[in-house]
Amino acid sequence: MPLLTEDAKGVYVIAVTPFKEDGALDDASIDRMVDFYEEAGATGLTILGQLGEAPKLTAEESRLVARRVIDRVAGRLPIIVGVSAPGLAPMRELADGVMDMGAAGVMVAPPWTLKTDDQIYNYYASVGEALGKTPFVLQDYPLTTNVAIAAKVIDRIVRDVPTCVMLKHEDWPGLAKISALRALSDKGETRRISILCGNGGLFLPEEMARGADGAMTGFCYPEMMVGVVEACGRGDMDRAQDIFDAYLPLARYEQQQGIGLACRKYVLAKRGVIASAKQRKPGSVLSPADVADIERLLARQTRKVEEIAV
Amino acid sequence: MPLLTEDAKGVYVIAVTPFKEDGALDDASIDRMVDFYEEAGATGLTILGQLGEAPKLTAEESRLVARRVIDRVAGRLPIIVGVSAPGLAPMRELADGVMDMGAAGVMVAPPWTLKTDDQIYNYYASVGEALGKTPFVLQDYPLTTNVAIAAKVIDRIVRDVPTCVMLKHEDWPGLAKISALRALSDKGETRRISILCGNGGLFLPEEMARGADGAMTGFCYPEMMVGVVEACGRGDMDRAQDIFDAYLPLARYEQQQGIGLACRKYVLAKRGVIASAKQRKPGSVLSPADVADIERLLARQTRKVEEIAV
Amino acid sequence: MPLLTEDAKGVYVIAVTPFKEDGALDDASIDRMVDFYEEAGATGLTILGQLGEAPKLTAEESRLVARRVIDRVAGRLPIIVGVSAPGLAPMRELADGVMDMGAAGVMVAPPWTLKTDDQIYNYYASVGEALGKTPFVLQDYPLTTNVAIAAKVIDRIVRDVPTCVMLKHEDWPGLAKISALRALSDKGETRRISILCGNGGLFLPEEMARGADGAMTGFCYPEMMVGVVEACGRGDMDRAQDIFDAYLPLARYEQQQGIGLACRKYVLAKRGVIASAKQRKPGSVLSPADVADIERLLARQTRKVEEIAV
Amino acid sequence: MPLLTEDAKGVYVIAVTPFKEDGALDDASIDRMVDFYEEAGATGLTILGQLGEAPKLTAEESRLVARRVIDRVAGRLPIIVGVSAPGLAPMRELADGVMDMGAAGVMVAPPWTLKTDDQIYNYYASVGEALGKTPFVLQDYPLTTNVAIAAKVIDRIVRDVPTCVMLKHEDWPGLAKISALRALSDKGETRRISILCGNGGLFLPEEMARGADGAMTGFCYPEMMVGVVEACGRGDMDRAQDIFDAYLPLARYEQQQGIGLACRKYVLAKRGVIASAKQRKPGSVLSPADVADIERLLARQTRKVEEIAV
Repeated sequence: MPLLTEDAKGVYVIAVTPFKEDGALDDASIDRMVDFYEEAGATGLTILGQLGEAPKLTAEESRLVARRVIDRVAGRLPIIVGVSAPGLAPMRELADGVMDMGAAGVMVAPPWTLKTDDQIYNYYASVGEALGKTPFVLQDYPLTTNVAIAAKVIDRIVRDVPTCVMLKHEDWPGLAKISALRALSDKGETRRISILCGNGGLFLPEEMARGADGAMTGFCYPEMMVGVVEACGRGDMDRAQDIFDAYLPLARYEQQQGIGLACRKYVLAKRGVIASAKQRKPGSVLSPADVADIERLLARQTRKVEEIAV
Repeated sequence: MPLLTEDAKGVYVIAVTPFKEDGALDDASIDRMVDFYEEAGATGLTILGQLGEAPKLTAEESRLVARRVIDRVAGRLPIIVGVSAPGLAPMRELADGVMDMGAAGVMVAPPWTLKTDDQIYNYYASVGEALGKTPFVLQDYPLTTNVAIAAKVIDRIVRDVPTCVMLKHEDWPGLAKISALRALSDKGETRRISILCGNGGLFLPEEMARGADGAMTGFCYPEMMVGVVEACGRGDMDRAQDIFDAYLPLARYEQQQGIGLACRKYVLAKRGVIASAKQRKPGSVLSPADVADIERLLARQTRKVEEIAV
Repeated sequence: MPLLTEDAKGVYVIAVTPFKEDGALDDASIDRMVDFYEEAGATGLTILGQLGEAPKLTAEESRLVARRVIDRVAGRLPIIVGVSAPGLAPMRELADGVMDMGAAGVMVAPPWTLKTDDQIYNYYASVGEALGKTPFVLQDYPLTTNVAIAAKVIDRIVRDVPTCVMLKHEDWPGLAKISALRALSDKGETRRISILCGNGGLFLPEEMARGADGAMTGFCYPEMMVGVVEACGRGDMDRAQDIFDAYLPLARYEQQQGIGLACRKYVLAKRGVIASAKQRKPGSVLSPADVADIERLLARQTRKVEEIAV
Repeated sequence: MPLLTEDAKGVYVIAVTPFKEDGALDDASIDRMVDFYEEAGATGLTILGQLGEAPKLTAEESRLVARRVIDRVAGRLPIIVGVSAPGLAPMRELADGVMDMGAAGVMVAPPWTLKTDDQIYNYYASVGEALGKTPFVLQDYPLTTNVAIAAKVIDRIVRDVPTCVMLKHEDWPGLAKISALRALSDKGETRRISILCGNGGLFLPEEMARGADGAMTGFCYPEMMVGVVEACGRGDMDRAQDIFDAYLPLARYEQQQGIGLACRKYVLAKRGVIASAKQRKPGSVLSPADVADIERLLARQTRKVEEIAV
């Protein structure tokens, strides 16, 4: 399987981890989900991230999920595996395991205790050293990690750690960060890495305009991200924004911390992709009022999407 | 001037503080801004909040701004004044001063150091004691205050502190919190207080459906909040959402922490409401790319608003 | 092996994890360390805690360390194993594994994201459910976990979760918390659990006077904790304080976050307990100035200990 | 009055703010306290800091306290005034006021929201600009400010902001930071500023050995700091440590966050320095068990101090 490189573009969908009602892994749903994302136009998949409930899996279960997904895509799509861990030894162990299975790369979020610029830099230098040749994605998501990473720190990591090939960008606000990183690579001062954007896609048109290479997020209608990225690629910002606007009310709703994953799994279950919206404990549960909100938003979204003939 | 009560409803706009290019207070813009918000249908105004750059004013300047706004509305609209301070003595001093001028009430956010339920409860009990008869708004905005306030803690404060008459709700996600508080007051267990919602209005239709009484936020098109609250009041959720959707792309953009205020002041200056978008240091500044984003969104918004004939 | 109960008393030493210079686990040093702690009068051992560098071990290595320690003590001392993990599934897996080996119980610190009283309570209720019959220690260490747990929350957990049998107390300040918990159990309102104190032993005499049952900490001279706890047990507070004072300058130095572990391993290596002071990455390293400080403090400590004939 | 410079050395005592039982400022106690600190050998005083309950004073009260202290010392001791504020305008207003009264300089802690190196640097650059010619002390106290300032960031501030003349050092652990800053100024790369150490004096001998110029802290026995700094100045580390050790058990007790100030005021009241240990709300109160602890420690301290004939 080819390794992840700085040239990655498109839509890497953050996959959920499907569970059965009893909390066991649901292999059949994993297969359907992989097929669904592929058919929706995903360029790649990212598994075992925060919203993939990775910390709730045992080490063995993590490997089983990775194996199932990698086997299912059979090399047609690159797979990135979240390997964030409190220590470097278990991180390397999982990373080596999934790379052997055929993953394209791994993703690493910083531990919440990092504070100063040098602490963050040193952490990722250690990660690069620990992971050896495995290419990795730097996940920059201050809202959930508590770690604020300045653009100049990312730049320094990119200069010194050649296996850091991608930024999963979900700082908020983060548009200036994309501009700053692209200004540096455009001047030839730093290697140009791939920047894929998260945050549920809530700023995707603006992010693409600043030089992002695509999206890496899990909004339950991946067709939105695929459509926006494709239209932006053609330079058709107005079309991109039309598509975006049609899905924005739901995307905004899904981007609520905590219940967002419940919303996402609810819609994926409703769309027939996964058999159950079940989350492992501790998980969030939708109230009847939440479900009413989502159904109302879905009904309106269906009309709007028809209007613009996505 | 009548005092703020639990019956408050509608749209209390969070006002900016207009400065001249040299950083001095701009009285003429204060007057125009007050008129603009009134004409846009605001029910009340909230001044000297976080986005009013209150901490950047001296104590004397804070009183000057309050005086100017209160004189301008001449009793036609109730004015709420942000008085959050690291200590109770300066808080009470400012509160007493603005109530004497004719303010309707004050607003208090918690200091960032509060952690446990009891610490939060005790803080607001002390606030109630310090403020005497002055009615106050509890500002619940964890994203900027670092303080997570459980619904049950708000309920306990409401039970014990009779001058707590309103919740400025901007937890995120926070829909379940509205439902929980309303369930308690519907059962008659707790006094029903006014709940006005912030977060730039990004969840306003859903919040109204859960029992909120309106909005308290500063999105630069107050007509959106006025329209949504009015339509929800009539039970016309579809119309509310139509109006909301037309403004959502810009509202989402303005809700970015940090540069949001720059965006808001830019649009207010462009609309002729304030003379300058200047912020006092330390303030955020829009880049040319930010301005391009905003102008693009404004152009699209104008078209959409026309389509739905707001 | 008997299970940990509420009656536990004495000194449970927090054990380091000895590594060879190349970073591999050092079995011979593990054996020597276990013998050393036992000879120093430890009542029990706690392994794989934060200062045992647990997050730097793979799941398999964690099991190897536990096995080695449990086999070495051969039932003479109870062993508590740190099993804190971001998710319940890996926590249960490790807990079940070490209980099968003969551990007496496990220890669980809260994830840094918990905020409100209910979130903390619910977390430990879930932990109790996930761990089944395994008795566990609630680790209350706000300085490193970012989670402030009120005494009333601990009390509520103790009431509802029968397998919570011990508090590892290292809030700071935390004396009032001990008093509050003991007042509740003295009135018969709540089960009396074991309270063993951490924080490097820096408040051990005062903690014992408030009703603590002993110490659970890793200060490199366990004879200090043993001596203080024993003297307090006889009611000889003056003797307890004499012993304490003799070691306090070094204990204070070792209690520095970050370099504390380096200091502890340096002294244990110097005392011949472990072969190397090596930490796995990312670890702290003593500077020559740090070593000079420690050597100066050790020389003075030796004199003082002789004076009081510990 | 001479301005504070980089050459400042010795012991600047952090003064409490004495209140009467009814919460009013106690002028007579202010006078007595100033005299007491001067007679104890203080080189200077720092007023209106965190432990001076500064946030609980109105702007006018802050000026009254500063005026009273400055008048009392009548130029014999330099006075530093804490002016930390959420915004630059009120900070400058207070700073200008106290400098006009004859203060030697001011002290500024960072707002809790600062995260990256550049954010911290930019903040202090703005502070320097706002304060004009007024010399200021950078307060580095992560435990209470939530802001971690790397040595290299302090160095950058010192290079670029000439009015930053002193570091109030209370990072913990912070010994390496002193060494790093001294290494830079010894090489002639950066201006050598004054470093006075806080943290209740708990690491004073080691800090002096690393190149600190003295202490700035409020331990209720300033004679300890004076004695240690003087002995270190003579190069008599053993004498310094003897003095230090005699007071360490109490200093450790007083350094507990929250109740520390209550302990300090209790002892100062007991020593006849202030009339009442009263704190303004929200304040901490000693329990009978706390008082028993303190009395026990005081009795032992008296014996030890006699033994070493301080």
